[in-house]
Amino acid sequence: MKAPLIDNLQYAKFSPRIFRQMREGGVDAVHVTIAYHENFREMVLNLEGWNRWFEMHPKLIMRGTCAGDVRRARETGRTAIFFGFQNPSPIGDDIGLVEICHQLGVRFMQLTYNNQSLLATGCYEDEDTGLTRMGRQVVAEMNRVGMVVDMSHSAERSTLEAIDQSARPIAITHANPDWWHPALRNKSDEVLRALTRAGGMLGFSIYPHHLKDGSACTLSSFCEMVAEAADRYGAEHLGIGSDLCQDQPDSVVEWMRVGRWTKAMDYGEGTADKAGFPPMPSWFANNRDFGNIRRGLVAVGFDGGEIDGIMGGNWLRFYDEGFGPA
Amino acid sequence: MKAPLIDNLQYAKFSPRIFRQMREGGVDAVHVTIAYHENFREMVLNLEGWNRWFEMHPKLIMRGTCAGDVRRARETGRTAIFFGFQNPSPIGDDIGLVEICHQLGVRFMQLTYNNQSLLATGCYEDEDTGLTRMGRQVVAEMNRVGMVVDMSHSAERSTLEAIDQSARPIAITHANPDWWHPALRNKSDEVLRALTRAGGMLGFSIYPHHLKDGSACTLSSFCEMVAEAADRYGAEHLGIGSDLCQDQPDSVVEWMRVGRWTKAMDYGEGTADKAGFPPMPSWFANNRDFGNIRRGLVAVGFDGGEIDGIMGGNWLRFYDEGFGPA
Repeated sequence: MKAPLIDNLQYAKFSPRIFRQMREGGVDAVHVTIAYHENFREMVLNLEGWNRWFEMHPKLIMRGTCAGDVRRARETGRTAIFFGFQNPSPIGDDIGLVEICHQLGVRFMQLTYNNQSLLATGCYEDEDTGLTRMGRQVVAEMNRVGMVVDMSHSAERSTLEAIDQSARPIAITHANPDWWHPALRNKSDEVLRALTRAGGMLGFSIYPHHLKDGSACTLSSFCEMVAEAADRYGAEHLGIGSDLCQDQPDSVVEWMRVGRWTKAMDYGEGTADKAGFPPMPSWFANNRDFGNIRRGLVAVGFDGGEIDGIMGGNWLRFYDEGFGPA
Repeated sequence: MKAPLIDNLQYAKFSPRIFRQMREGGVDAVHVTIAYHENFREMVLNLEGWNRWFEMHPKLIMRGTCAGDVRRARETGRTAIFFGFQNPSPIGDDIGLVEICHQLGVRFMQLTYNNQSLLATGCYEDEDTGLTRMGRQVVAEMNRVGMVVDMSHSAERSTLEAIDQSARPIAITHANPDWWHPALRNKSDEVLRALTRAGGMLGFSIYPHHLKDGSACTLSSFCEMVAEAADRYGAEHLGIGSDLCQDQPDSVVEWMRVGRWTKAMDYGEGTADKAGFPPMPSWFANNRDFGNIRRGLVAVGFDGGEIDGIMGGNWLRFYDEGFGPA
């Protein structure tokens, strides 16, 4: 099989138009976010919405729950959709919901969004107290059932403890190294070394707040960063997690940041005068643009095997190892 | 493979002791009730409880979602547990929950318990208005995803309409013919003819209120009734749905009858002076007693193939045909 193309994080306002763009772009699998602040029942409503998409567009997309589904999607000319949470809010304080959510197809769960959660500390808190009592139990349960721990939005100590506590490799599905662009959401060299040494995966984000020079970031700057990361951590631990939020109205980025946890406004990575979604860089507007990244990786000197891995092969290997019971 | 032994309805107070009795009795599969009046979240809690049983007792029981799981259970010396609702309360007014519940492993759903539901009329109501608008939509959705319509507690017209409306065979998982014992819960000849003519299945109940002479019902009376049913409807449409409520305290039968729908007491099939669970007949106390039924069926003249079918082969065929997408 030709190497798969996998984007391991999107939160677009999905529509038949975007599903067609996935097909036009040859995207074999996408990990989509189905919870930011949703409780369990609200998250199930989001799953119901996806079930309707699968029923209505069976020639474009299919539900993905295991690595084999990426292969089946490719063979049948479809895109496999995998589910993940950016916040553990759907499980609340009930560890039994980890397995229930896995049975419903959820394959990634961040232990925190930006704030302290019941499990760990988010990257916007002043104090990072690491994994909580429940956090340690939930990591073990996620390991048991085959749900991947994702620390994309978590704080430094919590992330290091999750890497250490987890018996299976974990992921940072969408972030970049802070030595390239020192955003609060980007990750330290220490975290990325620990992550990849333990077999974990880093998905590079193309969300402008995570990019050097933001929306003006050049493809070559992005790809030079990927090359440096490959030198430091090994190309086999790298993939894409674009964080594509295509077609979302600005009310959604407000929901992502504010949820129901504050009555005040929080601008997250934005500012009061730039509160909305930032414009994407010219070389990545939608699912048809992965070819640009591939060409950029060629230009900075990666060989074909390394590029195949970064564009999806590494995520597929990770899916193969991560999504089944321990 | 030797013919399987399947009990297509139990609501015991399950415990390792009962799971061991299932193994001692050679029971390959049991359909267990996980909702009487529970809403969606409460039903999920019941599923969480079962997940814990599966985790703690992997040598005795396993989660069953397809006919192949009965075969796998048999090959590995375990009992496969299938889930069903005796009331559509977990889906409320949300048709999207039909597929979600199917994804969680639910394979049977009664359109009503004893009362009017959002979908149809229960057998204790004065007026039976047949399937509701939502009821017709839900039957079609259950047909689509592979969840079996069960009319065990529904009223006559509703049951006939469900048989007619369903594009796939339906089930009455636990009831007996009313020509043998005229209980409100037992079924008319007209219903049973329509059910079986459409490929549906009847599971014979051993709950004393459904038996001629109640707890004193003899094995030969029960088996003669089965023989008469085979003559009328064909042995291939018959199975067991014992309705075993072993070890349940009487508070549970009150919950089954009263739920949260009334502040008054309702005795259901019981009476004020016999409000609790009735004692089971001497020949069927628990999962080790299916051999008695087999011997009783031999005594009334069934041949080996017919008995294999009634004891589980017919349910297995029905599982094979009923649990997948249309």
